[in-house]
Amino acid sequence: MLNITEQARVRTVALNRPEALNAFNKRQFDEVAEAFLAAKADAECRVLVLTGAGRAFSAGADLGPTTDYQPVHGLDGMLHAIVDFPKPFVLAINGLGVGIGATLTGLADFVFMAQSARLRCPFSTLGLVAEAGSTRTFPALMGRQRAMWFLMASEWMSATQCKEAGLALEVFADDGFMDAVHEKAAYLAGLPSESLTSAKRLIIDASERGRLKTVIAAENAALAKLSGGPANLEAVAAFREKREADFSNL
Amino acid sequence: MLNITEQARVRTVALNRPEALNAFNKRQFDEVAEAFLAAKADAECRVLVLTGAGRAFSAGADLGPTTDYQPVHGLDGMLHAIVDFPKPFVLAINGLGVGIGATLTGLADFVFMAQSARLRCPFSTLGLVAEAGSTRTFPALMGRQRAMWFLMASEWMSATQCKEAGLALEVFADDGFMDAVHEKAAYLAGLPSESLTSAKRLIIDASERGRLKTVIAAENAALAKLSGGPANLEAVAAFREKREADFSNL
Amino acid sequence: MLNITEQARVRTVALNRPEALNAFNKRQFDEVAEAFLAAKADAECRVLVLTGAGRAFSAGADLGPTTDYQPVHGLDGMLHAIVDFPKPFVLAINGLGVGIGATLTGLADFVFMAQSARLRCPFSTLGLVAEAGSTRTFPALMGRQRAMWFLMASEWMSATQCKEAGLALEVFADDGFMDAVHEKAAYLAGLPSESLTSAKRLIIDASERGRLKTVIAAENAALAKLSGGPANLEAVAAFREKREADFSNL
Repeated sequence: MLNITEQARVRTVALNRPEALNAFNKRQFDEVAEAFLAAKADAECRVLVLTGAGRAFSAGADLGPTTDYQPVHGLDGMLHAIVDFPKPFVLAINGLGVGIGATLTGLADFVFMAQSARLRCPFSTLGLVAEAGSTRTFPALMGRQRAMWFLMASEWMSATQCKEAGLALEVFADDGFMDAVHEKAAYLAGLPSESLTSAKRLIIDASERGRLKTVIAAENAALAKLSGGPANLEAVAAFREKREADFSNL
Repeated sequence: MLNITEQARVRTVALNRPEALNAFNKRQFDEVAEAFLAAKADAECRVLVLTGAGRAFSAGADLGPTTDYQPVHGLDGMLHAIVDFPKPFVLAINGLGVGIGATLTGLADFVFMAQSARLRCPFSTLGLVAEAGSTRTFPALMGRQRAMWFLMASEWMSATQCKEAGLALEVFADDGFMDAVHEKAAYLAGLPSESLTSAKRLIIDASERGRLKTVIAAENAALAKLSGGPANLEAVAAFREKREADFSNL
Repeated sequence: MLNITEQARVRTVALNRPEALNAFNKRQFDEVAEAFLAAKADAECRVLVLTGAGRAFSAGADLGPTTDYQPVHGLDGMLHAIVDFPKPFVLAINGLGVGIGATLTGLADFVFMAQSARLRCPFSTLGLVAEAGSTRTFPALMGRQRAMWFLMASEWMSATQCKEAGLALEVFADDGFMDAVHEKAAYLAGLPSESLTSAKRLIIDASERGRLKTVIAAENAALAKLSGGPANLEAVAAFREKREADFSNL
């Protein structure tokens, strides 16, 4: 369910379940983890670009019925593979990003967004809480007030707002978006690889990588506690019954 | 000396000594500390909004003659109660904020400012130094250069400048300012409470809360050392004698 | 090779090898270190301004043939003297800043740039990696994405871009640039010295100063490993042979 291509030492990994707006299911967590591990091991790959096929980047975690697929890496394994990825990691947000489709931006080295793309962290409206290290990465990128609002209020942020906030490095026109991203990525891929990996290892050092994994674990523990709780159940019920959720007594 | 109201699970605490531009005296430190502790304990309160009655938010610490009031919490107790407050803390800067009326912004989760409001940290012109954790919170919000200038240079920052710098999340028109703030606060109060407190606990974790208290203690020690020192005495004398202070030999 | 002047308790230290665009050689590292140590010890000096004579701020490290000059402080000693400087350190970027002429901005308390000045970190195109603590200071000032791009991509940043990113506090017209900087510096120098040094010591505390020195050491170790390596040799050869460097097989 990934579409992987390579050009000019830039490996492009596209989430490829457009019919589900590229929502992550257990299998996709594993496949993305494997893609990062393979790109790390392959000297021919200098830069990894993650994007989505079709009109969305990713609608988040798949809330559909769980299959009997046995995960190898899981969400945690995917996030650790990203945190430990030593080469430039470019995120090309081609369309909407929701939930983990939004929080992944905090783990990317460079985020480029299509003009019409937008991000949303709907955790609070689901009775849940943010993940993917975003409770640490977002305040560092945007400042605590903006990050807390984005993580708590479940509102959309446009590409322009993301750039102003520091969550995206640049916004490109929808037309030719991937070409513009590839130009940036190919430029990086043409520079001495060891200079780039040395710089990344200094900017995100072992202590910061360890800290991110600790935060990811704390987020997952909070998520596990809230999942299936009263607010989460009310949110799911309201969604099914096509009504507004009522959290006033919770 | 506080005016406390509640609507839609939003508790609004207004500093209410408009005749003194809501300057904090020992009694007010205690009352605000109590307000935060009570709001924490009361499950009916989901969001706390702190603001000022009248045209100012707060003119800072009251420099008037000290009464024989025996403080229970003191400045430190108030700051600790704020640092440990687990629910969303909204600061509604309705008018001027000076000294601790400005540095408190660094401890708020969301700062909204009226268009005509402005902030000033006059510590250096008083021969003193900043408090309320601002030497840590301001660089994180604004970047070190802007924070250091604001904390050292005793200049005013307009509401617009505060928003640009990341010290305020949004600026609303003076007209209808509190209505606009309450709309935001009520929106948060309608979301699942545990999702909000979980997110806040992850974003400002125990280690960061401890670090803030250490910084507050270091600031207070520096303040105690400078208070009553030559520059502070010259500043007070110049103020009384209605002349420019001369720090050139200090 | 420095031009040192003092006015209104502001000491101005100008790199003074305009014929070499004020590139730092071993002697200049030592002289700047001495200037910071002397300014720290001299109670009459309240603020230090570092700038460049002529049209450039500094073209970076001098790549010319090494003389038999025996360094006393070296690059590390200069950086440590700056990190430990307890008074306000103003950087007046009067013209281009390249390499360490750009990364020093991260260690300054206040950076003012002339409108036509611009900065560049060409480390990756030289097969090298950033120094002067910039892998820590730049992400804190600009956010990680912008900092990583600036440190990896070897592109120019204009004065306006530096201000927008938080790397410079203000941009002044080229005409009268040093007068505008001196006005700011003299204003600070007129404030109580102990208030300023207390604020600086709180904002950059002993733990942060220690952390910066650790980062500087890690950067220098990475630099030593890359220096003379294949990419660095190819960059030097390409420069000599006036051709594009080709890093594709490295």
